[in-house]
Amino acid sequence: MTENIQTMPRLSLTAQSIPDDILGPILAEGTDPSFISFGGGLPCPEGLPVEAMRKACDEVLRSSAQRALQYSGPQGEIELREAVARYETEQRGTPTTPDEVLITSGSQQGLDLCARAFCDPGSRILVQRPTYIGALEAFNLSRPAYVELPEGPDGLEPEAIGEEARGARFAYILPTFSNPTGRTLGRAAREALAERARSLDFWILEDDPYGELWYRKAPPCTIRSLAPERTIRMSSFSKILAPGIRLGYITGPARVIRILTLIQSFAVLSTPAVNQLAAARVLSSGLMETHLPEVRAIYREHAEAMLSALEELMPRHPEIHWTHPEGGMFIWLHLPKQLDTFAMMQRAIEKKILYLPGQFFYALRPDVNCIRLAFVTVRKDLMREGVKRLSSLIRDELHL
Amino acid sequence: MTENIQTMPRLSLTAQSIPDDILGPILAEGTDPSFISFGGGLPCPEGLPVEAMRKACDEVLRSSAQRALQYSGPQGEIELREAVARYETEQRGTPTTPDEVLITSGSQQGLDLCARAFCDPGSRILVQRPTYIGALEAFNLSRPAYVELPEGPDGLEPEAIGEEARGARFAYILPTFSNPTGRTLGRAAREALAERARSLDFWILEDDPYGELWYRKAPPCTIRSLAPERTIRMSSFSKILAPGIRLGYITGPARVIRILTLIQSFAVLSTPAVNQLAAARVLSSGLMETHLPEVRAIYREHAEAMLSALEELMPRHPEIHWTHPEGGMFIWLHLPKQLDTFAMMQRAIEKKILYLPGQFFYALRPDVNCIRLAFVTVRKDLMREGVKRLSSLIRDELHL
Repeated sequence: MTENIQTMPRLSLTAQSIPDDILGPILAEGTDPSFISFGGGLPCPEGLPVEAMRKACDEVLRSSAQRALQYSGPQGEIELREAVARYETEQRGTPTTPDEVLITSGSQQGLDLCARAFCDPGSRILVQRPTYIGALEAFNLSRPAYVELPEGPDGLEPEAIGEEARGARFAYILPTFSNPTGRTLGRAAREALAERARSLDFWILEDDPYGELWYRKAPPCTIRSLAPERTIRMSSFSKILAPGIRLGYITGPARVIRILTLIQSFAVLSTPAVNQLAAARVLSSGLMETHLPEVRAIYREHAEAMLSALEELMPRHPEIHWTHPEGGMFIWLHLPKQLDTFAMMQRAIEKKILYLPGQFFYALRPDVNCIRLAFVTVRKDLMREGVKRLSSLIRDELHL
Repeated sequence: MTENIQTMPRLSLTAQSIPDDILGPILAEGTDPSFISFGGGLPCPEGLPVEAMRKACDEVLRSSAQRALQYSGPQGEIELREAVARYETEQRGTPTTPDEVLITSGSQQGLDLCARAFCDPGSRILVQRPTYIGALEAFNLSRPAYVELPEGPDGLEPEAIGEEARGARFAYILPTFSNPTGRTLGRAAREALAERARSLDFWILEDDPYGELWYRKAPPCTIRSLAPERTIRMSSFSKILAPGIRLGYITGPARVIRILTLIQSFAVLSTPAVNQLAAARVLSSGLMETHLPEVRAIYREHAEAMLSALEELMPRHPEIHWTHPEGGMFIWLHLPKQLDTFAMMQRAIEKKILYLPGQFFYALRPDVNCIRLAFVTVRKDLMREGVKRLSSLIRDELHL
C-alpha cells in the first residue's frame, strides 16, 4: 500500500555501505529439487537431534515454564553457561568459568558484538585469506580497515606476521576445519600465532564452530588455551545441536565478557530463555556422548564420498586441486587462474548445479578462480552426479 | 584463571561511552522475597499462555522439525509474517503485507536495527520527555544527538513541534500506554503528529508493545495507519505471548524493511525458526481471542488495585500526583520537586520496596522527582502493603 509514495529515511553511513545481495537470489535457485547444491553451509539434516530437542523443550515448558517464558539475564541462563564452561574445560582443554561465558544468538551475533565492542570506523582487523564471508558481513557493519595475514599451507603462516599487525584491534582466525577452506592450523602454528599476538600486541578472535565435527581425530588444542589473556573464543550450538535454536557463545576474560554482555543487553536484551534451558538440558543429558559420534560418522561419510568423486571425476590439470579436510563441512577447490567462478555461475545454473564463488571470501584482493563446496547437505546418492556436473562445467570452461 | 593478567582489547568509542550499570544491582535485590518490587517491567506471570506455548512447540517439533531446527531466512518465517500482516490489517486497522514485516528478537532488536540503519554518530533523534530507557540504551550504541519533543498532557504536544525537528532521522514515539508514563496519545494528537512529520520531513518510529493490553476500550488508530509513507512501526510478542521466546516485529514500507533485513542478517542471521513457527501456530490457533481478554482482565484488576491503593494511601500534597493509565503496565508518579528519587533508593531498600527512579527515562535534562511504578508482577494481596511502604517512605522524605 505504501510503495507508491517513495520517501525513504536517510540512511546511516553503515547502511549506505551495504552492497546489494547478489548471492541470495542465486542460492535461492538451489531449492529447486532438480538442482544439486554445494552452496549453502547448512548442517546435515540427518545429524539434527530432533527427538532430544523436542523432549527437552517439552520438559522445560512443563517444569520451568515461568522461567523459560520470562525475560532472561543478558549474559545467559546459568545452567547453559555452566554446561559451556564444563565442556570447554573438560572436552576442549580450555579452563573456563561460567562468568567467562556469554550466550549469544549463534556465533554470528558474537562476531557482531566483538566488532561493536572493539572497532571504530577505520580500525584495523587482521583476517585470513580467504576468510568467512559472514564474519566480513558482520564486521563491515562497523566499517573497519582490513589487513590480510600471510597465507600458509594450513591457512596461515604465523611466523610471517610482521609489524603491520601491531596494535590491530584483533586477528580473526578460523583455526579448525575453516570456512571456506576446510583447513586446520596445527599445534605449532597455533603456538606461533599466540607468540606473535603477544609480541605484536594484538588480540585473537578464535572462531571455532566446527571443532567437534572431526572425522578421525580431535583437532589440536584451542588458541584460547595457549593465550587465554588475549583470546576471545567463539563457538556455536548450530552444528552440534541445531541452527534453528540460534544459540552460540563467547568465552574470554570476565572483564571482556562484561563489556560484551552490556552491548548484548542493549541490542537484544537476551537470547531466548526457553531455547537456552532446552539446550542446557540436552547437553547435561549425556546425549552428546552418543550423538556426536553419530554426527561425526555422517560427516566423514559425506566427506569421503565427495573426495572420492572429485578424485575420480575432476579433470587432470596442474592448476586444479582441492583441500582434504579432516573435519567440518567444506572443501576449497582451486581452478586455473583464467577462470572466474562467479562469471561461471550462469552456466552452472544451466547445468543445475550450485556452489559459492570463492571471491566472496576475501576482505581484499579476491582470487576469482576458487570455489567453496559444502557437501554435507547433498544426499550421498547424488554426490557423484553433482561432482560430474561440476566437472563437466569446468571442462567446458577450459575447452577440454 | 585469566583475571590475573589484566590486558584488555582497545574499546570502540561506543563501548567506551557505555556507563556502568547502576540500576541492575539495585533491581537484583527485588528477587529477595521480603521485597515488594514495582521495579522491573515484566509481564504478569499469570498471563503467560504456558500450555499453548508448550503444545505449539511440541507440534512444530513433531511436524516440521527439519524446518524448525534449520537456519531461517533473515526476514522471518512466512507463516509468522502472514500472521503479523493479518493482525495489523484486521485488528489494528493498518494495512500490511508480509513483505512489509521483519521478525526481530523482541522489539529491543527493532530499536537497535533502526538506529544502525538510520543514525550516524551525532545524527538527531527526536524523543519524548520522558521516554523508554531501553530505547535510549539501544540508540546510544549509535551515539546520536537527542532533541526533546514538547511535552503535553498525554505525553506529547505535536502542534508545538517546530523547526528544531526538521530533517531529524526519526521521532521515537510511544503512543499507547507509554513506558514509563502509561499515557496514551489521542487520535487528534496522532493526526497532528503525522502532519508535523510531513511538513517538517521527519520519520516516525512508532513503538507499540502495549497496545493490546487495554483495560476497557481499544486505543486509537496506529500512527502508521495515519502516515504509512513515513512510519516504521514496532511491536512485540513479549506482552501478548511471552518475553522468553524473544520475538518482536517491525512493519513499514517494503523498501525500508529490505534494508533492516540486510542488517539483521549480518548481525544475527535470523531469529530462531522454532520460536517463530511455534508463535505462528499459537496466533493462528485462535487462542488470542480467548487469551487476550483474560490478560486484559488481569491487567485491569492489577491497575485498579494499584490506583485505589495510591488514592487511599498516598500523602495529600499539591505536588504529588500520578497518571491513570487505561492499559499497559506502568504508572508515573510525580513527587515534590525537592525529592531525588534515585537518592531515595537507599531508604526504599531499607523499607523493602523497589521502584525505578524517573531520571533514567530522560535523554536530556532529567527530572529527578519522578518514579515509574510497574504493578502487574506484584501479587494483588501485596499491592496495598507495597503502596503503604512507598507512602511511608515519601512521608519520611517530606518530614510529614
